[in-house]
Amino acid sequence: MTASLAERVLQGDVRAAARLMRLIDDAQPSAEAELKALFPHTGRAQLVGITGNPGAGKSTLVDRLVAHLRKLGKTVGVLAVDPSSPFTGGAILGDRIRMQDHALDPGVFIRSLATRGQLGGLSRATSDCARVLDAMGKDVVLIETVGVGQDEIEVCRLAHTTCVVVVPGLGDDIQAIKAGILEVADLFAVNKSDREGADRTVRDLRSMLELNHAMLGADDQAPYETQILKCVASRDEGIIELWNSIAAHYQYLKTSGELLEREKLRARTELIEILRERLMRVALAKLGKQGAQLDDLALRIARRETDPYTIADEAARL
Amino acid sequence: MTASLAERVLQGDVRAAARLMRLIDDAQPSAEAELKALFPHTGRAQLVGITGNPGAGKSTLVDRLVAHLRKLGKTVGVLAVDPSSPFTGGAILGDRIRMQDHALDPGVFIRSLATRGQLGGLSRATSDCARVLDAMGKDVVLIETVGVGQDEIEVCRLAHTTCVVVVPGLGDDIQAIKAGILEVADLFAVNKSDREGADRTVRDLRSMLELNHAMLGADDQAPYETQILKCVASRDEGIIELWNSIAAHYQYLKTSGELLEREKLRARTELIEILRERLMRVALAKLGKQGAQLDDLALRIARRETDPYTIADEAARL
Repeated sequence: MTASLAERVLQGDVRAAARLMRLIDDAQPSAEAELKALFPHTGRAQLVGITGNPGAGKSTLVDRLVAHLRKLGKTVGVLAVDPSSPFTGGAILGDRIRMQDHALDPGVFIRSLATRGQLGGLSRATSDCARVLDAMGKDVVLIETVGVGQDEIEVCRLAHTTCVVVVPGLGDDIQAIKAGILEVADLFAVNKSDREGADRTVRDLRSMLELNHAMLGADDQAPYETQILKCVASRDEGIIELWNSIAAHYQYLKTSGELLEREKLRARTELIEILRERLMRVALAKLGKQGAQLDDLALRIARRETDPYTIADEAARL
Repeated sequence: MTASLAERVLQGDVRAAARLMRLIDDAQPSAEAELKALFPHTGRAQLVGITGNPGAGKSTLVDRLVAHLRKLGKTVGVLAVDPSSPFTGGAILGDRIRMQDHALDPGVFIRSLATRGQLGGLSRATSDCARVLDAMGKDVVLIETVGVGQDEIEVCRLAHTTCVVVVPGLGDDIQAIKAGILEVADLFAVNKSDREGADRTVRDLRSMLELNHAMLGADDQAPYETQILKCVASRDEGIIELWNSIAAHYQYLKTSGELLEREKLRARTELIEILRERLMRVALAKLGKQGAQLDDLALRIARRETDPYTIADEAARL
């Protein structure tokens, strides 16, 4: 009898892991049984989110972090998350190029994710793929996003530590960073800090964080102060300090008990999403059984012959 | 007996409409019955999405379009969609200021939306609010987004025509625009085109569109050519031409039958989302009935005493 994908993943089989991640990215229901089998073997990897606007140099930074982690003897998984259009292809291409750097290193596993299915599919798929890397025994999983949209913020919520990468001279970007990202940022890396305006950017970020704290009110202040670090990833400067800061945050999560709280929150979200998916599958099958195809229903709704609320009520009752 | 919110909305009651939109924005289940009652009275408004990066001058452009539409005798609804953090407050403030311009004009209704709930909540809420404006009898509903992230792209999918606003000298922005926005762009407005580089931007956009068409392959080429128009919204230049182009696209959708196709697609998405919401409520109720609180379950999962798949299976069977 052949070993299941899950069994092979647990034995460190790289091809089995890649295969399972493809099933996850394609939202294949067959991935679930494997994820269920892997679940008891997860919860050991440190999950680090790396986010920031395009052009911030995230890929280079991630590469340098990987190199540093390998020197520390840690095994690493990298998930490059790109929810954008298939037209770009950037992440995939970049992925291939970067793969070559670490192609001979069995301690590194890089994979890009481009799930474009239903909303919520991306963070779910990323979470599941991180689980696979976790079960494979990777010590650290770096989750890199292409931008700082709402989708990416959701993705970051599943990381233990989220590092937001910015560059000097934020300009209009400061708006984009203000929008929601402060909530998930555990630390900021001011990359390309050999450029003019790096200190100014550090000051701007500091003011923004202070304003944020003030707005949240004294009682709600985070007990952990958000760190701001300068680095020049292309020259390998500041990478060690950056990692030390990420490691310190993880240590804080563990000793404060916040790690379990974050895991609980993640479990809660995941449980609800899985259950919803289950019920959805049942409901869609039921709509099909009624003989009325989904497309026909959509046409009747578009023609105002019925409304989506009535149909949904009927399907939920079946 | 008092009239329902829906009845009052159909009579053009502005306060009832504002109240219902607040219920929608807050994701109150009580909004559903009203939306269901309004549904047969919708499908007449022309929905126009206005998107683009922060700083592109979307708000000014929208204001000028509103003024032009009022001159044409059309009633207008404006939805300013801001999925960003509550820290910014930008949209709300801007909304108030802009409201004053049209405060005395009963033919204009402006409202900002800031739903930050679960994924998908934003496009759902926007769609529902557009329905309210539609049912009120607004001829045109302008949906303005704050940026061009994945969320905003989802929002644009519900518009009949999507206008992407850019400014000369795109720089890094070209990356952001490449990512997914081409799919939803029916036309581009190069705003602030009195600035240097406007013609260059037009050419860049043209090349991008051609490249995109080439990548899609000859067979999949869109039958409607994406228009690129220059304007200077602050000086009211090019606004008439912009509107004419939007109107021409809408006319094309109607005569080609694509309008019904888009409505069908929207109905399909909406039906699935409504059904998903219903099932979610059922699922949470089922988890509660088991006597096991959701938090306890999350803790057991976080501790790896069980897994979310097993719990979801149990709950789905109940």
